[in-house]
Amino acid sequence: MKVAFQGELGAYSEIAARALFGDVELSPVETFEEVFRAVYAGKCDRGVVPIENSLTGSVHRNYDLLLEHPLWIVGEVKLRIVHHLIALPGVKLKDVKRAYSHPQALEQCRAFLRERKIEPVPVYDTAGAVRILKEKRLKDSAAIASIQAARDYGMDVLVSDIAEHRENFTRFLAVGKEPAGDLKDPKTSVVFALKNIPGALFKALSVFALRDIDLVKIESRPIRGKPWQYMFYLDFEGGMEEERCRRAVDHLGEIATFLRVLGSYDKGREVEDWPYLR
Amino acid sequence: MKVAFQGELGAYSEIAARALFGDVELSPVETFEEVFRAVYAGKCDRGVVPIENSLTGSVHRNYDLLLEHPLWIVGEVKLRIVHHLIALPGVKLKDVKRAYSHPQALEQCRAFLRERKIEPVPVYDTAGAVRILKEKRLKDSAAIASIQAARDYGMDVLVSDIAEHRENFTRFLAVGKEPAGDLKDPKTSVVFALKNIPGALFKALSVFALRDIDLVKIESRPIRGKPWQYMFYLDFEGGMEEERCRRAVDHLGEIATFLRVLGSYDKGREVEDWPYLR
Repeated sequence: MKVAFQGELGAYSEIAARALFGDVELSPVETFEEVFRAVYAGKCDRGVVPIENSLTGSVHRNYDLLLEHPLWIVGEVKLRIVHHLIALPGVKLKDVKRAYSHPQALEQCRAFLRERKIEPVPVYDTAGAVRILKEKRLKDSAAIASIQAARDYGMDVLVSDIAEHRENFTRFLAVGKEPAGDLKDPKTSVVFALKNIPGALFKALSVFALRDIDLVKIESRPIRGKPWQYMFYLDFEGGMEEERCRRAVDHLGEIATFLRVLGSYDKGREVEDWPYLR
Repeated sequence: MKVAFQGELGAYSEIAARALFGDVELSPVETFEEVFRAVYAGKCDRGVVPIENSLTGSVHRNYDLLLEHPLWIVGEVKLRIVHHLIALPGVKLKDVKRAYSHPQALEQCRAFLRERKIEPVPVYDTAGAVRILKEKRLKDSAAIASIQAARDYGMDVLVSDIAEHRENFTRFLAVGKEPAGDLKDPKTSVVFALKNIPGALFKALSVFALRDIDLVKIESRPIRGKPWQYMFYLDFEGGMEEERCRRAVDHLGEIATFLRVLGSYDKGREVEDWPYLR
């Protein structure tokens, strides 16, 4: 099995891929789009992407990419994110003027940076920030990333666990070319569009409420070229092998102008203590 | 009247502030948070912030800041965003290896950049990207920003209107210390939290559906410290001076564990042809 993820070695996505699939071959690629393309082209068996952080919210680009590719969601995992301030060996905290990281990581560590007057510098990913430090031999800067990234690049951890809130989880999804089977405790993700008429969303949600199906999440995304119209992404408890779920989705199809089932998959466990995180 | 906005002169927020309030005194600040604080502290009468783009979606940080500050939404405007590739005078398109801009602007011009193998470099705002080019005298780079930013910094427009989709609008909100009055065609924004029980969102939306009140937008944001629980931001047609809207909100209060009315305000016009944009 070969699994694609966005970023570099030490990226949180790599850790999520390992938590989901164990000791498999990993294929780091540059963008989320390449993760989806690698799976669609058959170069990788699975792709793993972040979909939501419990502090900063959804990773909207990946919602859009789910819609743009004919792949299935086949798995989920929730990873506790532990951000560390990482620097070249020998660099002291008082030397650090700038911190490089992904904008979401910078936002999650905003209080820490502001208190110490460290300027946040946004780059495309957390582990990539560590690589930049190393390549440019920056002695007045640090990176915010996983401890695994510090290890991969032979860097020091200056301060551990610097995010503002301890309850910092990122939910990752795995995608594949075939739907997942043999599910134990599934949830299902669908995406749909509605006519722009009063009560449309209320009617759409009624198909679940009338069958006592619990909604886990709703997310709206703009439809390109149609300002102020939205696609709705909905996660609900249960799998498409259950008749009441199938009937609810059929019923939704009567109301929606567009509907696609993105997949049924086992609910992800929360991973907190993991050698790659501590 | 003095109006705070985030960014530098030439920022789209400045153009939105002018479209909303005309020829007033403008106060540029560094962060969205400072916009809210300037109004709350009475240093400015109004603040103007982007809340949603028709291609890339909501500006989630500003949803969070609306909740964190006891201010009212008092106005709205929808601005057509026209991105230009801007460089130092004398620089040719073939010299441009990198493009500096806000991540959302880079995303909106992704196809243009990829085709020309120009590397996107994320910075905190569009007009700031133009300033960086000028200050560092970068001759192998360009910025993506408004034409007003090019004028403010005496720079050249290399290519006009480079975003992928023409239907590119950003919706801006104005905030103030007192609710807006004398409304002609209002909408209302509320934010609420629900018990984590089946059918909760369905019941919440029923208070509007049962009164034929049209929903304009729903947005969910994570609640900090409570992973996988959400605040819902809802915009609906009508103002709180109408009895059916007041009754609907009262009814929502019976269902919600938290509820706040963010304000009733006149629906924003779409601004396309405006000297600052062309």
